[in-house]
Amino acid sequence: MSTTPRAARPRGKEAVGRERILEAAAELFVQSGYAATSTREIAKKVNIQQPSLYYHFKVKSDMLAELLLRTATPSVEHAERLAAQGSRLDPLERLTALIGFDVRLLCAGRWNLGSLYLLPEVGGDEFAEFRTARQSLKDFYARFVAEADDAHMVRVTDSARMAAMVFSLVEGVILRRADHPDLDPETTADETCRAALRVLGA
Amino acid sequence: MSTTPRAARPRGKEAVGRERILEAAAELFVQSGYAATSTREIAKKVNIQQPSLYYHFKVKSDMLAELLLRTATPSVEHAERLAAQGSRLDPLERLTALIGFDVRLLCAGRWNLGSLYLLPEVGGDEFAEFRTARQSLKDFYARFVAEADDAHMVRVTDSARMAAMVFSLVEGVILRRADHPDLDPETTADETCRAALRVLGA
Repeated sequence: MSTTPRAARPRGKEAVGRERILEAAAELFVQSGYAATSTREIAKKVNIQQPSLYYHFKVKSDMLAELLLRTATPSVEHAERLAAQGSRLDPLERLTALIGFDVRLLCAGRWNLGSLYLLPEVGGDEFAEFRTARQSLKDFYARFVAEADDAHMVRVTDSARMAAMVFSLVEGVILRRADHPDLDPETTADETCRAALRVLGA
Repeated sequence: MSTTPRAARPRGKEAVGRERILEAAAELFVQSGYAATSTREIAKKVNIQQPSLYYHFKVKSDMLAELLLRTATPSVEHAERLAAQGSRLDPLERLTALIGFDVRLLCAGRWNLGSLYLLPEVGGDEFAEFRTARQSLKDFYARFVAEADDAHMVRVTDSARMAAMVFSLVEGVILRRADHPDLDPETTADETCRAALRVLGA
């Protein structure tokens, strides 16, 4: 017997339905391609009628938008928490904590959602929120590297360019995961942190 | 066909026609998406009839296969030349020469063809030759890093894993180019070489 209050039950069920749709969409987008996947196929995979799907997501791009956001927003929020800790963490501790979190997130889930970053569709207005989140994340990398530079903890000539290099090292995980679907998140996070510190001459 | 020996490739007018088709295909694949592009649209863009297009490329995947090969085969051939130079170059010189060549190639041309690497279609049989070429390239990275390790020119605990990290740093250029279409090839090649040497503790 569930102890969930009656009023909250439909919401729980609805949330489960929503998750199942997103899981099916992720699989089809990554395995068959975004353009090649129809909402009809997604509904069929979840074994629901199309109107039920439309109740959660009005259009196909709403699903991709949410899946993409989930690869970036948690890292942005983690960066905000790290930034809020002030001097309790030094700049390099903040940076490596962010890298570790970000790599684990890009390794998470059954499907390599980062492989959808390079879709031409992602340049469209429907994905502006994702692009903003990813840019915020890049800005946090730039900020943490600049702070490490100010504290003379790294050896770089241009901290903005080196932050971009570290960011591409992190996102490179997407390409590595495409080659090795069983990439271990912890090992990969550790390796990427160490490589980033070396790149920065820390 | 992408398997046509180089010497047997069409010359003169035919070669020009072939190049124009590939240029149009590259633009449409990168800008509109591979699945969303039809051979009819490619033919229209080049202002030729579809049978003329089919004379050069029997199916759409033949165009993508050739475009992908062009992002990898020249680097493999360069790696072979570097390997053949033996002791005239030390292992790190070979590695940085390869990185520089590879980065410039990934930056080359008007369209970011590397952005097509993550298409689900690229897992298909039609692209086996590309995947083999890219694997050969990865093997060369592993070999040059292992040789540098044997010569005590780098500080790594697992040279194969570090070579994979360097390879992902190089291919990370694809993601950086997607963000900055005007990425300067020379600066990017230099930066990537320096970052790779640091990652390896050279």
